[in-house]
Amino acid sequence: MATTTNTGLADIGLIGLAVMGENLVLNIESRGYTVAVYNRTTSRVDEFLAGRGKGKRIIGTHSPQELAAVLKRPRKVMMLVKAGQAVDDTIAAIVPYLEPGDILIDGGNTHFRDTERRLQALAARGIRYIGTGVSGGEEGALRGPSIMPGGDASAWPEVQPIFQAIAAKVRDTDGREVPCCDWVGPGGAGHFVKMVHNGIEYGDMQLIGESYHVLKEMLGLTAPELHQVYARWNQGVLDSYLIEITANIFQHVDAETGKPLVEVILDAAGQKGTGKWTVDAATDNSVPLTLIAEAVFARCLSALKEQRVQASQVLAGPSPRRVSEREEWIADVEMALYASKIISYAQGFALMKAQAQASGWDLNYGGIAMLWRGGCIIRSVFLSRIKEAFDRNPKLVNLVLDPYFAGELGRAQHGWRRVVSRAVQEGIPVPAMASALAYYDGYRSAWLPANLLQAQRDYFGAHTYERVDKPRGQFFHTNWTGQGGTTTSGSYTV
Amino acid sequence: MATTTNTGLADIGLIGLAVMGENLVLNIESRGYTVAVYNRTTSRVDEFLAGRGKGKRIIGTHSPQELAAVLKRPRKVMMLVKAGQAVDDTIAAIVPYLEPGDILIDGGNTHFRDTERRLQALAARGIRYIGTGVSGGEEGALRGPSIMPGGDASAWPEVQPIFQAIAAKVRDTDGREVPCCDWVGPGGAGHFVKMVHNGIEYGDMQLIGESYHVLKEMLGLTAPELHQVYARWNQGVLDSYLIEITANIFQHVDAETGKPLVEVILDAAGQKGTGKWTVDAATDNSVPLTLIAEAVFARCLSALKEQRVQASQVLAGPSPRRVSEREEWIADVEMALYASKIISYAQGFALMKAQAQASGWDLNYGGIAMLWRGGCIIRSVFLSRIKEAFDRNPKLVNLVLDPYFAGELGRAQHGWRRVVSRAVQEGIPVPAMASALAYYDGYRSAWLPANLLQAQRDYFGAHTYERVDKPRGQFFHTNWTGQGGTTTSGSYTV
Repeated sequence: MATTTNTGLADIGLIGLAVMGENLVLNIESRGYTVAVYNRTTSRVDEFLAGRGKGKRIIGTHSPQELAAVLKRPRKVMMLVKAGQAVDDTIAAIVPYLEPGDILIDGGNTHFRDTERRLQALAARGIRYIGTGVSGGEEGALRGPSIMPGGDASAWPEVQPIFQAIAAKVRDTDGREVPCCDWVGPGGAGHFVKMVHNGIEYGDMQLIGESYHVLKEMLGLTAPELHQVYARWNQGVLDSYLIEITANIFQHVDAETGKPLVEVILDAAGQKGTGKWTVDAATDNSVPLTLIAEAVFARCLSALKEQRVQASQVLAGPSPRRVSEREEWIADVEMALYASKIISYAQGFALMKAQAQASGWDLNYGGIAMLWRGGCIIRSVFLSRIKEAFDRNPKLVNLVLDPYFAGELGRAQHGWRRVVSRAVQEGIPVPAMASALAYYDGYRSAWLPANLLQAQRDYFGAHTYERVDKPRGQFFHTNWTGQGGTTTSGSYTV
Repeated sequence: MATTTNTGLADIGLIGLAVMGENLVLNIESRGYTVAVYNRTTSRVDEFLAGRGKGKRIIGTHSPQELAAVLKRPRKVMMLVKAGQAVDDTIAAIVPYLEPGDILIDGGNTHFRDTERRLQALAARGIRYIGTGVSGGEEGALRGPSIMPGGDASAWPEVQPIFQAIAAKVRDTDGREVPCCDWVGPGGAGHFVKMVHNGIEYGDMQLIGESYHVLKEMLGLTAPELHQVYARWNQGVLDSYLIEITANIFQHVDAETGKPLVEVILDAAGQKGTGKWTVDAATDNSVPLTLIAEAVFARCLSALKEQRVQASQVLAGPSPRRVSEREEWIADVEMALYASKIISYAQGFALMKAQAQASGWDLNYGGIAMLWRGGCIIRSVFLSRIKEAFDRNPKLVNLVLDPYFAGELGRAQHGWRRVVSRAVQEGIPVPAMASALAYYDGYRSAWLPANLLQAQRDYFGAHTYERVDKPRGQFFHTNWTGQGGTTTSGSYTV
């Protein structure tokens, strides 16, 4: 229970009664808290109080003023409205009724730059702002989400009891039960980490799709057989929520046609933009986030269904031959998926490190892995291995340099290479697996051909280069064409 | 010569006397025009007039007011200053001395959104604004750049004679000599097309780097041998400026060490941001621009030189074995580079089509290919094939669907697959070639595994899906877990 003494009735207020908001209210209330609720369309408040919220410690209010009036001080108000203009509108509506020291929380999928802008504006009025990722969908909101709060650190002790009470719980690597909620950092750190979570989710899903593709095309597995493969994989290194639901999906039969349901679903993927944000953040920070980028682009390509159908009539390729060694191929695909997943997380954590450095955040990377360990879509046993890696070395520069993950990659690379090279030969696209492998081989290359690229840039643009036999930071220029002057674009004429 | 009758002396004014600006002034003057120049640090004006500009039809001025005073009406003022704040500052300095109908031109590497913002603001004051890409570096500016102007179309006839006089000239596909300069479109279209040009340049350079890598590692070719390979390739389908200078680069010997110069250049690439912009524009438009994205990320990865040296000690990989069939391998690598290049341009043109649709631009894609045919870094014979493809079908949805390019890809795919699959086996990173191949195989796949992805999204987030046996636009939801309610995140617990 909240410990502040004051005259209000409710421990926390929640604005926005879509299913996500309703479920979060019910979750909070179930932990013994009194929750005041408000929704712009106020009939929604009455419906909720008469329905799922009936007979509970939930106070319905019909205006921001009324909401503010019933809250204990300092007030805690959480918004669960659509990211974007609706958040600004909600802030404008509630702020006149808040006092300095009150706490306003955005629980939506907001871009971290928007959170930083709002945090600054509200700090000037003495309002303490928190932007928090909430992951796990509607069901997670009800039963225990992963919560990633960031912003005004002075507000954290005020909301910590409620947030940690409602969050998912997992066993830490030392056996303790811990909530999947902890303070992430200042500014937009909470929403940034949630965004990277979503980007990683894009990557995980794309990799599972590619594994499905090569199993289906090269072994001819049926849906029941695919169910068995993924169910088995869920007992091993890939043990995770997304592998589990994939196994379940292959069991579903379409009532209308009697076919496996997955086979009547159209192969055109949707997206909601957080994957794109993750890629943009990577280019902003010059972090090679190749796998998630390929995953985002793969969704875009899948959506071009009509063009693909047309292209399939026009563009030549090999006819995929079946693989005869069934169990070996399944094991190879498991390793390809596993190794690629390690790369994806390594890239995601490298992105968080880069943004943290740019923003002056001191992030706890092992702690972030544990926030994702339960409640959210990417929850998996794997995340505990990441926690252990950062326990071994909190300053770890890249996950793949950790001895455990380096060893796993070394073990997995043989099957990974066999899957990618065979897919390439047979004409089956595995963009994320191939991109991950190119990153692995590039990252472990002490030398890359960028010397030629620097020579080209100096040749046509006098961009200068460094030398292998001179200290870093000394720049040289060559007059490549011998035509004099400081630069030249050469002689090629057409 | 300009044909307007008025009292001014100079045909055009130019602000910003860095080397690029100076060279453009000398180019314009050499075509018979009188050019007035101004630079914020005015000593630069005097130095130029006393040096390279001596004895020419060049008028030095020492203030924006003076510059405006000497120009024929409507005034034409071109800015060649650093993109960003300097452009806004320059506009603020000159605009008080301009009249409605005057023309202001930004010739820098400006983001197209900035150009659109400035165009709108200046239109309100009656100033006609042009944002133009100018490519070809300093030498191109002097001898004939590629020029890509867009913005206020009413201003085009006023600047067309000057711009087309100074631009590079090439033979059109019907044999006519045409300038590498034509009106691109409204708004920020000119700067957008220049940005895509730069992104494609990133891709071309990365592909050449990968070809160098696999030739070097798998054949052990020396620099003189590499010179011969690229010189030979420059006689075939890869005939281009970048292949030519690559051949030249391998001939250069370092005076200090006696080694091939390229081998003493550090393998850490720099970048200036236009590649990143291109990738961001692709995610904005949901266009799979995988190759340029991989090229941008490859530069980022190359810059992590210290991490790579460390990782090379930690991460396992195969020891590359040499290829014994030398000529076959060289021919395969040529095809891998060629096919990947076709994909890169196909993706780049698809991005332009998407932005044009979003912005309401009516772009001439064959014309754009011809703008790049001379003067700029990516100039090549190849671009004429693109022009021909759009001549055959101006509504071409994707370059790879053109019969010529589809045929070339079909011919090249065998070597392309051999190079990528072998590189994967031997542990040599070819991220751009592999990504291009995955795009090719994905684009020609009537079916992709995105049906599973849609099933997953519906399973955990009730995002709904379409069915293969129902019309597009009908959305379905399944209660996957049978637990009731509208959605569920399933049962996986940790």
